[in-house]
Formats: sequence, C-alpha cells, structure tokens
Amino acid sequence: MSTSADTLNWAPDPDADPATYTYTFGGAAPVAHLRPGQRISTWTMDCFGGRVRSSADLPSLVCDPRYLNPQSGPFFIDGAQPGDTLAVHFVSIEPREAWGVSSTVPFFGALTSTNYTATLQPALLERTWFYELDLIDRQVRYAAVDTPFTAALPLDPMHGTVGVAPAFGEVRSSLTPGDWGGNMDTPEMRAGVTCYLGVNVEGALFSLGDGHARQGEGEACGVAVECAMDTEVIVDLLAGHTCPWPRLESDDYIMTTGSTRPLEDAFRIAHQQMILWVAELTGQSVIDSYQLVSQAALTPIANVVDTNYTVVCKFPKSLLKGVRAMDGMHSRMRDKARYLAG
Amino acid sequence: MSTSADTLNWAPDPDADPATYTYTFGGAAPVAHLRPGQRISTWTMDCFGGRVRSSADLPSLVCDPRYLNPQSGPFFIDGAQPGDTLAVHFVSIEPREAWGVSSTVPFFGALTSTNYTATLQPALLERTWFYELDLIDRQVRYAAVDTPFTAALPLDPMHGTVGVAPAFGEVRSSLTPGDWGGNMDTPEMRAGVTCYLGVNVEGALFSLGDGHARQGEGEACGVAVECAMDTEVIVDLLAGHTCPWPRLESDDYIMTTGSTRPLEDAFRIAHQQMILWVAELTGQSVIDSYQLVSQAALTPIANVVDTNYTVVCKFPKSLLKGVRAMDGMHSRMRDKARYLAG
Amino acid sequence: MSTSADTLNWAPDPDADPATYTYTFGGAAPVAHLRPGQRISTWTMDCFGGRVRSSADLPSLVCDPRYLNPQSGPFFIDGAQPGDTLAVHFVSIEPREAWGVSSTVPFFGALTSTNYTATLQPALLERTWFYELDLIDRQVRYAAVDTPFTAALPLDPMHGTVGVAPAFGEVRSSLTPGDWGGNMDTPEMRAGVTCYLGVNVEGALFSLGDGHARQGEGEACGVAVECAMDTEVIVDLLAGHTCPWPRLESDDYIMTTGSTRPLEDAFRIAHQQMILWVAELTGQSVIDSYQLVSQAALTPIANVVDTNYTVVCKFPKSLLKGVRAMDGMHSRMRDKARYLAG
Amino acid sequence: MSTSADTLNWAPDPDADPATYTYTFGGAAPVAHLRPGQRISTWTMDCFGGRVRSSADLPSLVCDPRYLNPQSGPFFIDGAQPGDTLAVHFVSIEPREAWGVSSTVPFFGALTSTNYTATLQPALLERTWFYELDLIDRQVRYAAVDTPFTAALPLDPMHGTVGVAPAFGEVRSSLTPGDWGGNMDTPEMRAGVTCYLGVNVEGALFSLGDGHARQGEGEACGVAVECAMDTEVIVDLLAGHTCPWPRLESDDYIMTTGSTRPLEDAFRIAHQQMILWVAELTGQSVIDSYQLVSQAALTPIANVVDTNYTVVCKFPKSLLKGVRAMDGMHSRMRDKARYLAG
Repeated sequence: MSTSADTLNWAPDPDADPATYTYTFGGAAPVAHLRPGQRISTWTMDCFGGRVRSSADLPSLVCDPRYLNPQSGPFFIDGAQPGDTLAVHFVSIEPREAWGVSSTVPFFGALTSTNYTATLQPALLERTWFYELDLIDRQVRYAAVDTPFTAALPLDPMHGTVGVAPAFGEVRSSLTPGDWGGNMDTPEMRAGVTCYLGVNVEGALFSLGDGHARQGEGEACGVAVECAMDTEVIVDLLAGHTCPWPRLESDDYIMTTGSTRPLEDAFRIAHQQMILWVAELTGQSVIDSYQLVSQAALTPIANVVDTNYTVVCKFPKSLLKGVRAMDGMHSRMRDKARYLAG
Repeated sequence: MSTSADTLNWAPDPDADPATYTYTFGGAAPVAHLRPGQRISTWTMDCFGGRVRSSADLPSLVCDPRYLNPQSGPFFIDGAQPGDTLAVHFVSIEPREAWGVSSTVPFFGALTSTNYTATLQPALLERTWFYELDLIDRQVRYAAVDTPFTAALPLDPMHGTVGVAPAFGEVRSSLTPGDWGGNMDTPEMRAGVTCYLGVNVEGALFSLGDGHARQGEGEACGVAVECAMDTEVIVDLLAGHTCPWPRLESDDYIMTTGSTRPLEDAFRIAHQQMILWVAELTGQSVIDSYQLVSQAALTPIANVVDTNYTVVCKFPKSLLKGVRAMDGMHSRMRDKARYLAG
Repeated sequence: MSTSADTLNWAPDPDADPATYTYTFGGAAPVAHLRPGQRISTWTMDCFGGRVRSSADLPSLVCDPRYLNPQSGPFFIDGAQPGDTLAVHFVSIEPREAWGVSSTVPFFGALTSTNYTATLQPALLERTWFYELDLIDRQVRYAAVDTPFTAALPLDPMHGTVGVAPAFGEVRSSLTPGDWGGNMDTPEMRAGVTCYLGVNVEGALFSLGDGHARQGEGEACGVAVECAMDTEVIVDLLAGHTCPWPRLESDDYIMTTGSTRPLEDAFRIAHQQMILWVAELTGQSVIDSYQLVSQAALTPIANVVDTNYTVVCKFPKSLLKGVRAMDGMHSRMRDKARYLAG
Repeated sequence: MSTSADTLNWAPDPDADPATYTYTFGGAAPVAHLRPGQRISTWTMDCFGGRVRSSADLPSLVCDPRYLNPQSGPFFIDGAQPGDTLAVHFVSIEPREAWGVSSTVPFFGALTSTNYTATLQPALLERTWFYELDLIDRQVRYAAVDTPFTAALPLDPMHGTVGVAPAFGEVRSSLTPGDWGGNMDTPEMRAGVTCYLGVNVEGALFSLGDGHARQGEGEACGVAVECAMDTEVIVDLLAGHTCPWPRLESDDYIMTTGSTRPLEDAFRIAHQQMILWVAELTGQSVIDSYQLVSQAALTPIANVVDTNYTVVCKFPKSLLKGVRAMDGMHSRMRDKARYLAG
C-alpha cells in the first residue's frame, strides 16, 4: 500500500530538448528533493535517448555524442552529507515498452579496438538489432540479421547506470563507472536489490538510467538490450557510514564492485573491499577474511567496455551467521517494498 | 560396468624422490600410453606435493620451489596428432582424504604485490589454514585462526590444472595456464564436464593435477582448498578438429577460456573464441554471433593470481537448438561414463 | 622586448583561502581573458599548495586532499571554439625559490599498492625530502635521509600539469591526465616547447601548474622535485585544427601523448596519433607511416602513478624534410619568444 | 690483439635444415663450450631465418611459424652454476650485409589486435619494406611503398634477443622475453654494452640473435630493421652473484629490465630492481633509493609487441660516486675488448 505522501513521482519529458537532460554525475542541478525513506516512481529513457528505434537507426547517424545515456535525476536527498551512505532499494524495474534495441558502435566494445585500445584497423560493421520483449512470458526475443536464426533469452531487467555526484568537485560522464557508481553495467542491479553509494556532496545527487532488458556478463559488444524502464526505488541514508566503493545486497549475497582499468585492478578493488567488509561483519582478522573470501566468492565480470571496467564480488550471506550488513538496511527496505506492494 | 581392458590404472608413487614427478607441460616423458576412448583411473597429489599437512606447515619453509604442483602424467594418447583436439571427460573427482589445506604465500596472490606487480612493500603474513572435508555431507569446513569464527562451504571438487604439451617446443611450468590448458584454476573443471584441448605434439602428452575441494572465483589468495584427488577421466580424440584455446562443456553450457595478462585480454580471448564458436554452431554471421553472445554470456573469473590470468565465457546450450558442439562428443562421453558407472 | 600590452600578468594569491584556488580542469570560472598571441606572465604554486616546506612536513598531515595541485588559471582564450587547437609556448620556466620538496605519500606511487591496485599490504613509510635548488649552477641537490649520501642532479624545470576544460561537460581533477591534457607529468614540458591542446569549450579554459625542478621518467614515487614556478607562456590558436590528444613540439621533435590505463593503451594512443600525424605531414600512407614511426620513434614513459598513466612518442623533425607541423606554429612562437626576450 | 686461444669462432650453417636451428631458450643442446673470459666471434641469422629478402616476400607466405627467430647458440659456459651471473660484453655488432627488412605481420604488433588482444577486426595489410644499409655513412635508408617518400635513419645495430636457459625446467620460445632475457628488443643492447643474466642451469646455455640495424623504442609494428649480424662478445662469470632480471651496463648508465604484461608491471619490475640495486651500490636505505631513482631515472620502452612487454630503467653512473656495479665487470670487459681490438 502506498500513499502519495510516500512517493515522489518524477518523469523525464521525452519531448524536451535533449540538451536539457542530465548526462553527468555531478554538475547538474537537482530535479527534485527526496526525504530518506521516500519512494521514487520514475522512468528512464534508454541510453540512446529514444533515437534508436529500429534496425535502420544506426547510433552514429541518429545520436549526438553529447547526448548519450540520459539519467533520471539528480535527486537531492535531504540530509545526505559527505561521509554518509545512500541506500537505494530497487522495488521494481520493468521495461516501459515491448521492445529494446542493441547495436555495435564504431570503436566501442570489447572485441574491437577503441579510442583507448587504439589500433590502425578499421571499425567493425555498425548494426542495430531490434528485440521484442515479451513481458508476459518474460522473454527477450533475439533475431539474427544475416540468417533466420532466432533465440529467446530470459527477461532480466536491470539498470546499467546508478550513482551519485563524485568527490573532489569532479563531474563525470554517465558513460563512466567509478567509486561514485555510474555506468557499472552489472546485471546484479535488478529489482529486489539494494545498492549502497558513498555520499560525496550535500544531498548526494542520485541519478539512474540505462535500463537493460538483459545483458551478458561483460556486455561484450558494449550495448545491452537497451530499453526505457519504469522503475520504483526507495532511498534511505546510513548516516556516518562510509562506503568507499558501491556495494549491492540481495537476499542471498552481499556484493562489492570495483571499476577501473586494467581489469585486474577492478578485481583487486572488489575483493579488497569484500575482504574488509567480511572481516568487519564476522569479527575475523583481515588475513582470515582473505582466506574465507578466497574460497567462497563468486566473481562475475560486469563490463569490459566502458571507460572503466567493472568487476563484482559476491559473498553468500548464509556464511554471515545472521549478522546483518549495513545495519540491516536491505531487509528493512525489502520489507517496506513488500508492504508498499500490498 | 568397467573391464580392465577399458581402464588404465596409473598412480603417482608418493614415496618417490620429488624430483622424479612431472612439473611441466611438455618436456616430460610419458608415464603411460592410452587409446582414444579409454578410461584413466588415477589420483593426483596436492599442489604442495603433500608437504603442507597442518597449520604449522608454511609453504615457504616446507616446499622446494622446484617441486610445486606435481602432475599425474603425462599420458601419451595413441594416434593424437597436432591439429587434433583431445577430449577429456571428468567421470569423477573425489578428495582422496578428509582434509585439505590453503595458505597465503609470500608475494603470491591477487591482494599482494608479487614478483611481477612489484612494489617495495613487505609480504603479507604467511599462514596455513587446515580444512576438514566432510565427504558425506559434502562440506568444506573452514575455521578462522585468529578468532573462533567457522563456516561450512559446499564441497565442489575440481582440478585446477589440466593440459597438454604446448606448441613450438615450449615447456611450461605447471603453475602457468595458457592455450595448452595448464593451471587455469576454474571451478568449472568439475565432474561431469568435458575439457577440449588442442593437440600440439604427437601423443598430446596430457597431464592433470592441482585438485581443489573448492575455490572461489578468482582464487584471490592464490591457493584454493588443496587436496589429493581420486579422479577418473575418459579421453577421446576429435581428429582434424582444431581448438585454439581450451574449451569446456557441461550438460548446460559450452565454455571457452582465455589465459593471459592483463585480465581484459583474457576476457577478449574467451569471448572471441565463444563468438566464433557460436557462429559456427548456429550458422550465424560473426557480427550476429557477437550480438547474441553479448546478451547471453556468463563470464566468471577463474584466476587472477597465476602467471597468466584466466577468464571463462559460458553460453547456454539451450540456445543452440539441438546443434551439438564438437560433434556431440560431450554427450557421448557422459553417456559412456554413466554406463561404466553401472 | 615586451610591452605591457603584450603581456597579461596574473598571479595566484598565496594568502587566499585554499578553497578558492582551481583544482580542476573544467568547472572553474576564468580568472582572466587572453587574446591569441598574447603572453602570460604568472607563477604557479607547488602541488602541495606550499604546505610541505621541510622534511618535517608529511603530506598526509599538512595537506587537505581536496586542495592538492592548485592550478594557475583557468584563462579564457578569446575566440577559442570547440574544434580549434590551443598552442601554448613555454617561454621560460624557472623555480621561484631555491628549494623544492618530494615525498612518498601513503598508497600513491608506482612501487606501492594504491586505491586502484588494491592489496592488503600496509603503506610504505611516508617521508619528505628537501632539495636545495642551485639556480646558478643549475643543479638539484639531493640528500638521503638515512645515510650521508648526496647527489647533484641537473636542474630541468617543467610543468607536470597543463590543460584545458574536458569535453562532454566533464570536470576532472588536476591530479588526472587525459585527452584534455592535465597531469601528464612529462619532463618534455620544458621551456622552449610548444604544447598543443584540442579546445572542447568556448574559451578553452587553459590552466597550468605542478612545477617540477626535475623528475625521472615515470615519476616512480609519484612526487617529483616539486616547487613553485615562475613561468611565461605565449598562447595562440589554430582555428579549425583538431588535436585529439595533447601534442608537444620542440626544435628537434614532434611529440604525441596518450594517457590512460593500462600503460600499453597509453603507448597505443601515443603511437597511433604519431603515425596518423606523420602520415599527414609526409603524405605517406598510414601503413608506410606505421613502418617509419616503428623504426624512428623514441618512447619515454611520462608517469605510471597518476589516475591515468602517460606515454610520450617522439619523432625527429629532421625526417620531415622541412614540412612544418601545425602550420609552423612552433617556430613562429619560438621566434616571438626570442624577440620578446630581446 | 686476439689469439685463437682467446676466441671461439662459431657460425650457423645457413644451408642446414631450418629444423636444426635453435628457437628456444632452454631445451636445446649446446653447440659449443666456452670458458669465462673467452670471446665468441659469430654471426646471427635474421629473425626470418633469411627467408624475407625483398618486398615481395611476405612473412606469412615464406616463413614457417615453427622456425622464427633462430638463435646462435646455446653456448655452455664452463663453470656457470645456478646462482651465478653471466656477463656478456658486446665487443662489436655489425650488419653482415648491406640490407635489412621489416614488415607488418598479420595480428602481430602494437597497433593491431593480436591473438591475445583479440578482437573481431580483420588484420592490417601485410607488407615488407626493404632497407639499404649504408655501412660507411652509418645510415639505414627507408623508402615508402605507396609514395616516393624516403628517409635516412642513423644505423644503430643491436641484438633483440639475448638470453640463457630459464629456471624450473621451462623452455621458452625465442620470441618471448622474461627474467632469462630472451626477446627483450631494447635498442640499448648495442656494442659497448655489458648484459648481465642470472644463471638458472649448469652452463647457463647462452644464445643470441635477432639483429636489428635499428629499431624505434617500443618496436611498434613488431618488426625492426632485421638483418643478419656479425657479432663479437666476451663472456664472463660473477660467481655467487644473483641477478633476478636482466641488467645492462654502458659507460654512462646502469640499466634494469622488466618483461611482463601489462606494461605497468614491466615498469614496476625494472624500477624495483633499479631501486634495490642503487640502494646496494650507494649504501642508501631502500626508501631513500626510491626517492633518488624517482628523480634520476630515464625509462625508455623497449617493446610493446612481444608475448611479454619490456621496459628499461636507466640510472646515470655519474651519481654512483665511483662505486662500480657488478664488481667492476663492465669496465674490465670493455678494457679487454679495446685491448683485443688493438
């Protein structure tokens, strides 16, 4: 059950000048204020700002590079101060329409040279794939372009981009992930999960976007099954609780992330953060925690395509013997979400 | 049902001079010959050659660096020629004793500087953890050293090291993974899985070792729950079928591996190999396969600690519409394994 | 000979609140306007904002992490538009005082773990070294702390940080190098050299800082011989001339830079940019230019410590057969500098 | 002055079956024995085994991948034991003929995807460039293929590949560099320089090859100006003196090398080794040496194309205050070389 008092409804204006949307973490004025504990009901445009709508739309032709990956927000969280941690619980993430798109983009992706992994080779073929999303059967319908091959993949909606304003006055493109969150592109960012983000500026300035109907781990071609997304989140604050790198929590796992290059350093960050976290939660020494995490962790790659690469480290909560991470914030938020859902 | 004619029994001699064991891929004389289709029943010493048996045994004190990670083999596969692919089906992998060990090793592991990621910092504390293996309840029992914390992890036996002789006359340490297989350290190498390895020399010269009662993805501290392992495999040949990098197949997934540094290049190799493989199996163009794999792949990290790092790419066989990878070798070998098991 | 009309004199106020200085590229209001062709006479604070003045001053104790590497600027260049290239000729770079400092900083530098190359090891010892600068004999006097060892190194003043506002609305810390320039930390940025920077925003918003009395290639410990610097530069514009990554030009070499991680990608960028530039200047095909640059380039490492690593590629102008890079801007600016010097 | 007793003359047989040459470090029987202090007069085939002789010869067509980079040797150094260091002084390195070749090779080089930095892009154009070597004027004459552009580069003969048998029974391709030396491809390996290599096996098993008339730093396209080389070296032993990574010494610099991936780890190795070496030579603490090397080092990149990348760190001997590195071996060997030269 939800009352209007609990929920902030905010929506982007799809008819506005694209220059007016938010494309950065930091550097944008808040679109609305939120109180800790409040729910946001919003939707997010796809990463192309809705300009890629069929296989005839090639990103390099229909998109302006200044206007990629628009974010819904930023939202100013009342009371959020540097040194606090913002908790964002994903109540629901549902494709807004029954279609999505993916594409190859010249010199972008893991299996091509890029502006950074620079070579003298020509770009791969640019192509757009159109996907039907079956929201009843929960399937993403893939169709090859060059042959009649088709496949149905499980619908698994998620947000590629979730974050707050960075520290030290930086303003970062919504195409980049880092310690402020941003474009982490992990499929773990799905409904039912809580994301923890360290607050760097007053009000945190939280935004989200880049909905994916699903993506593979690593997002190899650089573009998931992109779609506009209807999303509800609850936000809350952990005052005085620092969070150096974004963390996630599901009912079964606590998760850490690291986003940098090369990929082994993203791995190192995610594992170092998990080892320190598990040591804190279990009362173990750091060297014992290192041992336990080494034997228990799952380590799916999130993305190897963005300006920083992202690795996730997952640790089973069943090993924590009932100790609740982040003061039990996840279960409280999940319970609240269930209550609101009726 | 098994007859002696079907099975080669070969075992290392635990009382022999450690200098007589096999520590390399390539460069060692075969210990036995095998016919394609034949089964090997063997056991493998743990990576420490059995010298680390309690928490009092520190690897740097009890192990000779020349004698780490002894392999069972190499086995000469009759008829194997360069350009063929060797298929190795893991019928069973069971800890030989009810204990395992792990440890930190000075300047080895992902969360420490090493001889390659060289810094001026001192080594982390060297410590050995002793694990009880509950082979009935299928649990690996962890106990912290500095506090009373304990945890029970699922037993998930696997081989860290599986490979053949490298190409171009190279001889590589059993501590290193590469396109010949070797020390890939992926938990996917468990019973019921078939591993495919490109043959580089006459007879292939297949070896295996480095049994783990379980390991986390990434093997962060560099050492899994190491144990001697009783293992049965069936070997077979795919004549004229090349395999540039090791592949695995389970009942549910086809898998590719890449092993190199930096970690993003291991990712690139594994995904490039999967994209080409899926294109071949589905008849799709490479660019379509790139798209499909980008949305469907799972990408667990195997190791970020060995002299090369390893990434695995997994693609669901359910999307292959019944097309059988590697001429259906996996299902034939699995059926044979079941038949032999009675 | 110089007239006041030619020269803008601008100086930071060393007594101001450190919060009022400029610590970013982008995101700061211009401190002054400049016309193309005009000279700036200024000075730059050292990277510690003058707070590390003796071996007793440890950066982690006396510096606020928000206030590191203050820049002089930004200067708004009248007429500079996105798509132009800003040329900055260093007329003179002279230490402002007869001393400099260097230090180790916890978890910063190439021979230690960092927040990105994260390990569980403790930080290296933090220490400050005080250097006497002999501005007559042009020497930097090093004295070991733990032993009586001393050494005199050649004075070779340079600016570690030179750049403009980044593209796409980003604001980047002055500790980071990238395609906007920034904290490249190359000893090639010395008097007599022209630096070319692609303009991303109206007015370019050029800043400089981080004077070094000298530094080794790679800046291994992360801190050069830091000092306040008296500097004169002439600025000019190449309208409609793009410059994707910062370039430098001396009397003998044209130079390209690449700044990213891992270091091989910084190498790739610098070499790709040089190959394309040499192809353009010599009329050769790209593949021929690739060959020539491969045999002729010098490739000193600039830094392996900052948030991005920087590599420089140098190509001898003697091979260009008199063709002038960047429309001859460097020689015109150098001649003007000599004329102004009388 | 030289007597036959001082000099071992050994030459490869250019008419032999290519399968009989040496293509590995380790794994090959010695071709001759040498006493410490003895001189070898030999020549080395070019990296293509002499099969690329004109612009019409493309490596992928005329070369067998098993027979690339033949080495002269291995030479068994009498008395060399693991734990000793082999010193190799290059008395002279002179192109054997008045021509050299370079080429692009499919999926090899820094500005292309490779088998490791795997993408889906097609290979760059394969092409061979023929160079005239003017041994009188000391020039390497480049001619573009697609345009009439020509250039004369300084002749600077060197060996790309110098090494000993690796440790732990490994056998490594002559295309790979590592702690045994091998294919480091640094232009610092020129006449007048002494190379130090840690001995891993009895007799050291020293080989050399891969002569370059010159190369750029980084060897961007993967192939230098390759030529057969007439070379004289003196070998000697430093008994009981370990050398973990190859070092070089000229009259002006001591140099360390690191060879691995990613490139920043090669940098770290070279600098760590130099810091420890300078600490030992100057009696400074390690942290003081870190400081001094950070301000004084030159750091040219050697190669970013081989299976491991190589970075060199150079430290000026003028700062060592007369302390002689490696017990003064370099100056003794250089004096001997001069004496022998008359």
